[in-house]
Amino acid sequence: MTTDAKVDAAAEAALRLATTSTETRNEALAAMATAIEEASGEILTANAVDVEQAERQLAAGAYSQALVDRLKLTEAKLASIVEMVRSVAAQPDPIGQTVSARELAPGLDLYEVRVPLGVVAAVFESRPDALVQIAALGAKSGNAVILKGGSEAAESNRALHGVIAEATPMLPAGWSALIEAREDVETVLGRDDAVDLVMPRGSGEFVAHVEASTRIPVLGHTEGVCHVFIDADADAEMAAAIAMDAKTQYPAVCNAMETLLVHEAVAADMLPPLVEQLQQAGVTVRGDAPTRQVVDIDPVTPDDWRTEYGDLELSIGTVGSLNAAIEHINTNGSKHTEAIVTDDTGRARRFMEAVDAASVFHNASTRFADGYRYGLGAEVGIATGKTHARGPVGVEGLTTTKYYLEGEGHRVAEFSGADAAAFTHRETPDTAW
Amino acid sequence: MTTDAKVDAAAEAALRLATTSTETRNEALAAMATAIEEASGEILTANAVDVEQAERQLAAGAYSQALVDRLKLTEAKLASIVEMVRSVAAQPDPIGQTVSARELAPGLDLYEVRVPLGVVAAVFESRPDALVQIAALGAKSGNAVILKGGSEAAESNRALHGVIAEATPMLPAGWSALIEAREDVETVLGRDDAVDLVMPRGSGEFVAHVEASTRIPVLGHTEGVCHVFIDADADAEMAAAIAMDAKTQYPAVCNAMETLLVHEAVAADMLPPLVEQLQQAGVTVRGDAPTRQVVDIDPVTPDDWRTEYGDLELSIGTVGSLNAAIEHINTNGSKHTEAIVTDDTGRARRFMEAVDAASVFHNASTRFADGYRYGLGAEVGIATGKTHARGPVGVEGLTTTKYYLEGEGHRVAEFSGADAAAFTHRETPDTAW
Repeated sequence: MTTDAKVDAAAEAALRLATTSTETRNEALAAMATAIEEASGEILTANAVDVEQAERQLAAGAYSQALVDRLKLTEAKLASIVEMVRSVAAQPDPIGQTVSARELAPGLDLYEVRVPLGVVAAVFESRPDALVQIAALGAKSGNAVILKGGSEAAESNRALHGVIAEATPMLPAGWSALIEAREDVETVLGRDDAVDLVMPRGSGEFVAHVEASTRIPVLGHTEGVCHVFIDADADAEMAAAIAMDAKTQYPAVCNAMETLLVHEAVAADMLPPLVEQLQQAGVTVRGDAPTRQVVDIDPVTPDDWRTEYGDLELSIGTVGSLNAAIEHINTNGSKHTEAIVTDDTGRARRFMEAVDAASVFHNASTRFADGYRYGLGAEVGIATGKTHARGPVGVEGLTTTKYYLEGEGHRVAEFSGADAAAFTHRETPDTAW
Repeated sequence: MTTDAKVDAAAEAALRLATTSTETRNEALAAMATAIEEASGEILTANAVDVEQAERQLAAGAYSQALVDRLKLTEAKLASIVEMVRSVAAQPDPIGQTVSARELAPGLDLYEVRVPLGVVAAVFESRPDALVQIAALGAKSGNAVILKGGSEAAESNRALHGVIAEATPMLPAGWSALIEAREDVETVLGRDDAVDLVMPRGSGEFVAHVEASTRIPVLGHTEGVCHVFIDADADAEMAAAIAMDAKTQYPAVCNAMETLLVHEAVAADMLPPLVEQLQQAGVTVRGDAPTRQVVDIDPVTPDDWRTEYGDLELSIGTVGSLNAAIEHINTNGSKHTEAIVTDDTGRARRFMEAVDAASVFHNASTRFADGYRYGLGAEVGIATGKTHARGPVGVEGLTTTKYYLEGEGHRVAEFSGADAAAFTHRETPDTAW
């Protein structure tokens, strides 16, 4: 089937999906979970082909060990994927929820109701579990999905997608489509007549390329240049523990800390032991001039402040005030996740309100920014833009709303001119459509 | 000031606006309303210059009377603009509202809170009241605004914008910027580093041009090809009244009906008197073959089905079933506003759920699709896309959300591995941040 035919089929399926029941969509998720369990041998065999090729690339120096690790499926990883599908099924159904209800005039009632977006296209990296996660969130929210994974995971994705498509005859044919070539992505990006949202995950450049080359709305998942700011009255032990967690618990991910800011009032006390602890954990640290007056480390460059290392590297800055910390973050951050460690709740609130980011934390590690940890069941990505959905995006980010108006023959002419009837505009919040 | 400098100032102002109080923003709106009242002479004088030039263009055949009418301000129109600003001030403040609250684990609480988008750029047509409406909604929702009106209204816009800017010293300088040249719009479209949303109002081609030439998210206000479907068991009198209202009450606007669909079971009864009534009101009607078997009118062309006449013109189609009506609309409509007239609530619900549009009405005129009538106070436009905001967009469409997480030193490491602590994910809906 051509990519255009897949897009047409997805658009056709989306219209039907919009009227499927909660039960049908949950049934489909249950069937997906069971089918993945039953086909685990077949899926692991396909994955082994991808892993073997990736290991050859690793030996040739083209791939990193981290990529091979992310690519590799095991019985345990498959079990957690199945568990994730079941947890998405267990989430409340967003579709059909009445968001607001308002009487406009006697007998004229307006309802704003949550409905699927339609067709969602996702372009993601080498982890094969991403395919299942996005398909599961799509089925739950009544959207047709067009999936493009990393070429390193081609065999795994083909196997997983085949299992999912075969397991879901209760959903309209073509609701889930797999595309594989880069040209197919360009074809999809040109189909703003049929595709309602594109979700690119990957580098900033890749997301920028997608944004620049399509009229379809883009929900970008780009890099995270996340900060932890240790304020003047932070608890030293808590501050160190949060900084260590944010930097070292899983440095490859977008919600890991890339820059540590420390208030000058506590820099001399806190930095020497913390830098030692970081270095012992294998972290390469760099600092600005005031930082290097209290710890003997290499200097940062201006580029460092805007770099997502994704690795055991860290820039440290010493700032003279809360406002200087806020300004540094608003200038250099990527609006992903920022944290302050302080015992002063007033200063915490000032920081949280003034920092422009999807997530802002007080006395907690940046690593909590994640759909599963936020209680969303799963995530299609973390949006760093401001429109449509922001931060970790679960099923609700795959929905839109629709206005239903129930009248009794109402005409606008009655509400115009000299003897105009008046609108009541009375909220009726507990009324479901 | 260059356009780039205006954008920079707006971005700077947006960061400060995000932390202004409800009182300050409402004060600004009150001051705007009073200042417009007090400067009415000055504003009307400026408007007279625009109107005089427009009348010269009208005489030369370049402008329509409708354009001149929309452009012309009067004391009464100014009073209704002032009234609109005060009604926006009276709306509840969306900023700071807690959208959801959830305990992730003991002592770790997540809040999703409504915040301003940041910088919103609007490009709108010749009605000078649009400028005030968008500035008012921007101030209410804590957004900086960049405004580009029609060149026909240049003097009026300059006067109104001057009054608004001068009346609002309580808001950060540069929160509202006026740009005038087409090149300035291109400059703004290139500033995806600073502008968070673009709202183009105008023709489909103009919106498409904007979407194709910027990486900034676009909230498009395009045409409305709206339908009324008269079902087999519609009340004949109600059906005719709704059709007349939807077509003739104000044909120039996007929520007017462009196509009437009639179920074949009632076409022979209902169409002859209704077509006569439409023709008496000056409407030019065209029909498909089955329609022309019962009324003597010109044939429609395939293009007619997708045309927004914006005038006293109408296409009529006779369909064999509810599903045929749904399919016609999903194929030819612009996803704006669609209506069914029927006494059968089951069939109404089928239509409403299956039709893919921002607003779907039962027994009411399509003309109700409007921010003021919906109870939103005012609107920045009617969004026909599906992401971010859909249908008439009021203050809420100018907001996004931000996640605040309050912890007590929580680290992700505690929730990982063998002795992992469990997430509680307990909704705490009544907890405000």
